[in-house]
Amino acid sequence: MREHYHEELAAITSQLVQMARMAESAMDRATRALLDADLALAESVISDDGKLDALSKQVEESSISLVALQQPVASELRMLVGAIRMSATLERMGDLAQHVAKQARLRHPAASIPTELRATFSMMGAIAVSIVQKVEAVLETRNLAIAADVATADEAMDRLHRELFTTVLSPTWTHGVEAAIDVTLLSRYYERFADHGVSIARRVAYIVTGAMPSRDELAENA
Amino acid sequence: MREHYHEELAAITSQLVQMARMAESAMDRATRALLDADLALAESVISDDGKLDALSKQVEESSISLVALQQPVASELRMLVGAIRMSATLERMGDLAQHVAKQARLRHPAASIPTELRATFSMMGAIAVSIVQKVEAVLETRNLAIAADVATADEAMDRLHRELFTTVLSPTWTHGVEAAIDVTLLSRYYERFADHGVSIARRVAYIVTGAMPSRDELAENA
Repeated sequence: MREHYHEELAAITSQLVQMARMAESAMDRATRALLDADLALAESVISDDGKLDALSKQVEESSISLVALQQPVASELRMLVGAIRMSATLERMGDLAQHVAKQARLRHPAASIPTELRATFSMMGAIAVSIVQKVEAVLETRNLAIAADVATADEAMDRLHRELFTTVLSPTWTHGVEAAIDVTLLSRYYERFADHGVSIARRVAYIVTGAMPSRDELAENA
Repeated sequence: MREHYHEELAAITSQLVQMARMAESAMDRATRALLDADLALAESVISDDGKLDALSKQVEESSISLVALQQPVASELRMLVGAIRMSATLERMGDLAQHVAKQARLRHPAASIPTELRATFSMMGAIAVSIVQKVEAVLETRNLAIAADVATADEAMDRLHRELFTTVLSPTWTHGVEAAIDVTLLSRYYERFADHGVSIARRVAYIVTGAMPSRDELAENA
């Protein structure tokens, strides 16, 4: 029974990793849909979102029934309550990728991103994907040095988000209010996506150590 | 022992209600800080946010230990896993109130809200407060007719959010790009706050019925 239990614990971790892979794929496709005004790709992100929601429900149910039916030790309890929280966070990351895709769809066939901001969003997309890849590795290995890299990547995302405001508010901005709002909201989706990645990395650190680090404390392990 | 257990279940509900009251007070003060450019009020919201986070951690810990130590029946399991999720959501509602307060602080002593949008934000604040008050009642009574009212109020919030875009993008908008971005992000904070209220109402419906309604299904109980 105990062996079966450890298999089920491992299965929950696998499901979380799978959710992270789905969020990664969603954000990767959403960014390409945004930059290339690719409607079919945007639609694929939007229609896939239900799968992440379903998996989240599954993680929630198997986590809670393991807590109820087995006698988890403290670190396992942290892992199982963490799984419930992290699955909600990963679901939310999928939602944010979906928001990006919806923006691409809304402006299609026009592009949402003015030329001078293409490089910024391309970089935001790359950082978002790299953050969620690191999250997958942290979930699988519980290596807190990788958790620290998530925090560092989030700082890079925050810098891009701040720089975007400077661009949009500069007197050389010629694209008007609507484009300014579009790119600000988009930038916020990427920034939130990265924040959620940090929250998972912090949660894994808590599972491992029993203490919840702040983002800055997490980065100190780098 | 079983009696003690029911007391602990009731205590978790009380803590969730208390969190909702804190989110209510935070959003109420944040809105007044925003409309009156009241720095001290904004600071009070910002510095109070840690209390909500601490309470969330407490709910999480007592919920999981009840699952581990008692043998909850299905509806209690739904309640306890729901408490873990809802405490995270209430924490996030507090964060959104804090975002509003930070915006008030950022522009102080200037006002963030142009005159023609004061009524809109005043209404958004009132709807946000009324949603979280209904959430308190739903948590306390599990009355799904009140859960339906949350969904209806959220629709009103969405309408205001959409109308704000129309105002900001109209040719009569004279406040420039920065003010447009300010009010768009602010409006999004209120809209997200309301969404989180709906997610709690849906979760309570799930606890009561075992099925998770969509927002529209929730509204049909009205």
